[in-house]
Amino acid sequence: MQQSLLSKAQPYIEETIVQLYCRTFPQCLTIADLGCSSGPNSLFIISELLKTINAVCQKLGRSPPEFQVFLNDLPENDFNTIFKSTPNFYEKFRSDNGQEFGPIFVAGVPGSFYNRLFPTKTLNFVHSSFGLHWLSQVPQGIENNKGNVYLARTSPSNVYKAYAEQFNRDFSVFLSSRSKEMMIGGCMVITIVGTRSSDTPSKHCYFWEVFSKTLRDMVSEGLIEEVKLDSFNLPYYAPSIEEVQTIIESEGSFDLDWMKTFDDDWDTSEDYVNREFVHDKIRSGELVAKITRAMVEPIFVSHFGDSAIEDLFCRFAKDV
Amino acid sequence: MQQSLLSKAQPYIEETIVQLYCRTFPQCLTIADLGCSSGPNSLFIISELLKTINAVCQKLGRSPPEFQVFLNDLPENDFNTIFKSTPNFYEKFRSDNGQEFGPIFVAGVPGSFYNRLFPTKTLNFVHSSFGLHWLSQVPQGIENNKGNVYLARTSPSNVYKAYAEQFNRDFSVFLSSRSKEMMIGGCMVITIVGTRSSDTPSKHCYFWEVFSKTLRDMVSEGLIEEVKLDSFNLPYYAPSIEEVQTIIESEGSFDLDWMKTFDDDWDTSEDYVNREFVHDKIRSGELVAKITRAMVEPIFVSHFGDSAIEDLFCRFAKDV
Repeated sequence: MQQSLLSKAQPYIEETIVQLYCRTFPQCLTIADLGCSSGPNSLFIISELLKTINAVCQKLGRSPPEFQVFLNDLPENDFNTIFKSTPNFYEKFRSDNGQEFGPIFVAGVPGSFYNRLFPTKTLNFVHSSFGLHWLSQVPQGIENNKGNVYLARTSPSNVYKAYAEQFNRDFSVFLSSRSKEMMIGGCMVITIVGTRSSDTPSKHCYFWEVFSKTLRDMVSEGLIEEVKLDSFNLPYYAPSIEEVQTIIESEGSFDLDWMKTFDDDWDTSEDYVNREFVHDKIRSGELVAKITRAMVEPIFVSHFGDSAIEDLFCRFAKDV
Repeated sequence: MQQSLLSKAQPYIEETIVQLYCRTFPQCLTIADLGCSSGPNSLFIISELLKTINAVCQKLGRSPPEFQVFLNDLPENDFNTIFKSTPNFYEKFRSDNGQEFGPIFVAGVPGSFYNRLFPTKTLNFVHSSFGLHWLSQVPQGIENNKGNVYLARTSPSNVYKAYAEQFNRDFSVFLSSRSKEMMIGGCMVITIVGTRSSDTPSKHCYFWEVFSKTLRDMVSEGLIEEVKLDSFNLPYYAPSIEEVQTIIESEGSFDLDWMKTFDDDWDTSEDYVNREFVHDKIRSGELVAKITRAMVEPIFVSHFGDSAIEDLFCRFAKDV
């Protein structure tokens, strides 16, 4: 799913880094990927960016710069797996793009991007994909969001407010931290889950309403404690276009050059044109449950324990 | 053992970094620890260096610099464990040294230090402790070093030559790589296992002769194949003081400011003054076997498999 979404954003990310490179021609291009996760996606976008710069250099007859690539995620992320893949990554890169390319220096940076991660004025380009809708913490004062795990159409208005304010604080800290770490003239591309408008209840909320419904069913069957569900809320927020724009402007460190939106289905493998028709409901439900599990399992298990997890995602697949 | 040796080198490492800092007062002090391993030692020396700079800044009434710390080891190293310990490391550091200290930015760099690891002219200070006696590969053309795992008094002269040449090549590559990565005026401190003189057969060889003897006993009992032992040699070399000096001079990138030597016993917990007397032979043998196992187990297992490993180190403890 991430790769499908990333490939939509890719042309814009590439265009941005090419413009940045051609404006400054740094001897070393320092790139940070914030929220890199661990898996085939971790080095995918980096590899595409480097290829793009390589092509530009060949076109211009310039020798390519050195690349310093910082991969960041929380300290619990599995960096070992990424690091073990770096020798193959370097080798494949050189055989695909020529021995004279680079050199490329990959480093891992453990820590939350809601703190400073890099020394002052050291980064040329920052990329963050599907990380910033994760909040630094669950908003406080939303004890009355009972029976829901996120914003729902039935959530009280203080819950909406608390989520929006938490996102505002977190995203502002993110921007101000990055603005200290980036060199003058640097660029940042962020891909984030969002909603088209803040006025209407979001289609995005429906997704978590289904998840909440599955959990409520399990409560009513005595499989999960009600008090546990009532106290569970996701540290997650899908902001509207206007919210993102307003925060960037009021935080003030960055100029907003452009924003693009992509629609997306719960099941990205389904036919995008005929959006009302699901070809194979069972397979599709299972796929969505799998993607959801990959996202929320650690948070869920630390709150509920792991006894209900298999049952939960079987039921959720059916409900989807 | 490493910590005991490190603490002997520590005053010299600290003196060097303080002189470096006071000569240049960089806004960000970039430190690389090459061959950081994984465990309590990985952040120990870094923590001591930062404390030292903090004390110097307080004395001079300067606000401390930012610190970028690169921890390097091979891609198979367990970086996850180091990274998980970073939040506690940051917290403890701030509570011991004051909130205004730093900030400190730790990053992990996977790769062999016999290659380039960092962009050009980005490092102020490089430290490497107990890594550089590991060669990039077993020297070639030493098939006639049968029954030994390293240089032994009975080794043919071509084996001595091949080991010395491999070290010369590797150490030269190391120096030339670092010289590109370091800023003008940067400093490097290396701690390495060595021998006092290249003229006499080294006391150091005796150690591996005991190890070879244990393996030969196992061959004669049919527990290890003779052909396996004959083809096994450690990618390891303990150079003499003169060799290190000559290579640094002929490679030419660095000025050698000073060299210090420390004597050390196989069992560092034994009484250093009375070096001929071992208080508890059994305990001491077991300790030495444990330290040796920590060093050579992965190399040994990849050559011999893991079936003989327990037996080997039991026997080695007794032989020691």
